Amino acid sequence: MENIYCSIITIGDELLIGQTIDTNSAWIAQQLNPIGVQVKRRVAVGDNKEDIINALNEEQKHSKIILLTGGLGPTNDDLTKPILCDYFESTLVMNEAVLKHVTSFFERRKRPMLAINNNQALVPNNCVVLFNEVGTAPGLLFEKDDKLIIALPGVPFEMQYLVSTRVLSIISKKYITPNFIHRTLITAGEGESFVANRLIEFEKTLPQNIKLAYLPKLGLLKLRLTGTETSAAEIDEYFNTLKSILANIFVADQDIELEAQIGILLNEKNKTLSVAESCTGGHIAAKITSIKGSSLYFKGGIVPYSIESKENMLGVNTHTIETTTVVSEATALEMAQNCLQKFNTDYALSITGYLEKNDHENQVWIAFANKSTCIAKMITVPYDREKNTVLTVNSALNLLRLFIIENP
Amino acid sequence: MENIYCSIITIGDELLIGQTIDTNSAWIAQQLNPIGVQVKRRVAVGDNKEDIINALNEEQKHSKIILLTGGLGPTNDDLTKPILCDYFESTLVMNEAVLKHVTSFFERRKRPMLAINNNQALVPNNCVVLFNEVGTAPGLLFEKDDKLIIALPGVPFEMQYLVSTRVLSIISKKYITPNFIHRTLITAGEGESFVANRLIEFEKTLPQNIKLAYLPKLGLLKLRLTGTETSAAEIDEYFNTLKSILANIFVADQDIELEAQIGILLNEKNKTLSVAESCTGGHIAAKITSIKGSSLYFKGGIVPYSIESKENMLGVNTHTIETTTVVSEATALEMAQNCLQKFNTDYALSITGYLEKNDHENQVWIAFANKSTCIAKMITVPYDREKNTVLTVNSALNLLRLFIIENP
Repeated sequence: MENIYCSIITIGDELLIGQTIDTNSAWIAQQLNPIGVQVKRRVAVGDNKEDIINALNEEQKHSKIILLTGGLGPTNDDLTKPILCDYFESTLVMNEAVLKHVTSFFERRKRPMLAINNNQALVPNNCVVLFNEVGTAPGLLFEKDDKLIIALPGVPFEMQYLVSTRVLSIISKKYITPNFIHRTLITAGEGESFVANRLIEFEKTLPQNIKLAYLPKLGLLKLRLTGTETSAAEIDEYFNTLKSILANIFVADQDIELEAQIGILLNEKNKTLSVAESCTGGHIAAKITSIKGSSLYFKGGIVPYSIESKENMLGVNTHTIETTTVVSEATALEMAQNCLQKFNTDYALSITGYLEKNDHENQVWIAFANKSTCIAKMITVPYDREKNTVLTVNSALNLLRLFIIENP
Repeated sequence: MENIYCSIITIGDELLIGQTIDTNSAWIAQQLNPIGVQVKRRVAVGDNKEDIINALNEEQKHSKIILLTGGLGPTNDDLTKPILCDYFESTLVMNEAVLKHVTSFFERRKRPMLAINNNQALVPNNCVVLFNEVGTAPGLLFEKDDKLIIALPGVPFEMQYLVSTRVLSIISKKYITPNFIHRTLITAGEGESFVANRLIEFEKTLPQNIKLAYLPKLGLLKLRLTGTETSAAEIDEYFNTLKSILANIFVADQDIELEAQIGILLNEKNKTLSVAESCTGGHIAAKITSIKGSSLYFKGGIVPYSIESKENMLGVNTHTIETTTVVSEATALEMAQNCLQKFNTDYALSITGYLEKNDHENQVWIAFANKSTCIAKMITVPYDREKNTVLTVNSALNLLRLFIIENP
């Protein structure tokens, strides 16, 4: 079966001077994969006619489907629509349905409609208009021989709306696609090269159509098996072997964030959680509350960033801090115990440490408490402030997950 | 003067199935711009020989400098080094300096050295080896006619180390580059199309070599002027006009995050801050503590995610919550006042609201307190949980900035 490839062209000078990080492409790729479409190339070009036309021409050599994002807005630096008009020899026509939608869009927001917003309803006469319920710039779909060229807004939630509601079904109807299966294993506590060393024999057993990829994160390692034209049973067999080889460092057998796993565990057990995090400054609470429904099990957190607030808000003993310092096993244990009591939860997590880069490796103490047990673990963090924060958050969430499993 | 263009090729299947977001390219672009090198195109391709070679060939048509990242690691899915060897007809030779470094890298970490780690010291015989002090995979630099092809590790801090210490100076020595100047203005409180409408006449006055770009964020709008072969004085003149037109929505005249601006203000005034954030779940505290030195002015935060913790930990009156609900002006005001007292700070910020998508626009109350004043503002958030969080955080930080300025 023929592979159906897609190229994603993102348009915008901001992508090339590094002012904006492209998150759209990753999201699009995640949606295309399940319908059997492979992203072959992702290309970012500037707000420049020649570069956009070049990219359009080049990507058609690689892919049947070309998705463009960005440059559909109402301002002068938005070039995608006029360029596509030229490219497909279109004339612009006023689309009454889009005009009505744009007008009511501004009415509902009680904002005056401007002349440039009218232009949003001007569309090429030879394309399919992808009606944008959640914004003012519609998507534009052109068919050329057996190829699809689709322009979408760059605003992420507008692009996402159009891909979900229109683009995926149009692609599925037009092409017959092969099947792809991915399986992701998450591990923690062992570096990429050590894991690779343990998998030398396993990798030799993999057939041509199943590939293994290593995706290291700070404190975590993701391993991904990808099968082409395989069966779920075949890939599961290899995946289960992988799981059993790496059982001692196993975290999860799907690509699910640690905070989501913790949420599932707490919901299953009907237990609650609170956190007292000093050096991570709110990142742990932010991760936990990023999960929909987390208010069912997360009662709250405190960021006692000063010694005073550790004492006054969290009730850590002044004597403990004076005798063992603020970054110590004893301080971490007291923080976790007091957090558990003050928020009246079943589990509590505490963190205290230094994350700023130093001439030596910094220590971070992480403690876990429930009504009967309180333990602390020390990790060292060798990077800069930002990376040490990520490493500490990932390590703490994984240790919390293990504490909840081991202390039900 | 000839423009010096760079193409960035990022290599990895994880980029094409959407498992990883490419942050390397944006960082690289930020470093190249000040030395007068423009990123012309960014291309992501999979772990696949044909696609990597294609990209290498194609990008040399567009750019003098080709930077590749990724695929230099020790595992079997790391293809960049063998492919470059083929491409440049190299033979692999053991580099004793790299081998010594890799060996001591593992010794310092008290980890056994594996056979596959030895391979890190095998380098093509016809390239310049970019010694990697912070990791085990060296960078590889090939010269071909007037072009530079440079392969770097994909691990962000290793790539960053090599670009900062080696790549930038090599490029600066080899090419004479034109000069670019960017000026960024940040505004808040008015949508992209309204700002564009106010700037129609201004845009007409811009000369050919100065471009204006609109970069909308949730709750913020960045405007960027880019001048090519211009003087600081010339671009400043246009920038000052832009500033004066948009004075009423002005936030900052450089691309500096709101949390950094707040830090500067508090340090100047020698004042302290605490936060009580419910629905934003720790994101505000995480932003504030992401700034180096924030412990000088940030005393701490609380995430009172449950009604119980709003009452017990923050001392919000049960009566207030019962009569006005948990998302109300009165609750927000009490949260800010109590936060100020409990953390004993000069300023306090509080947030309470619903961020989960609803059938109507959600309300969020944000309050600000100092010793003499306490005010609350209401914003509406129309998106999903994730976007509403970003919108609320941006809005709250900007309002806090204004409150500090207006209430010294």
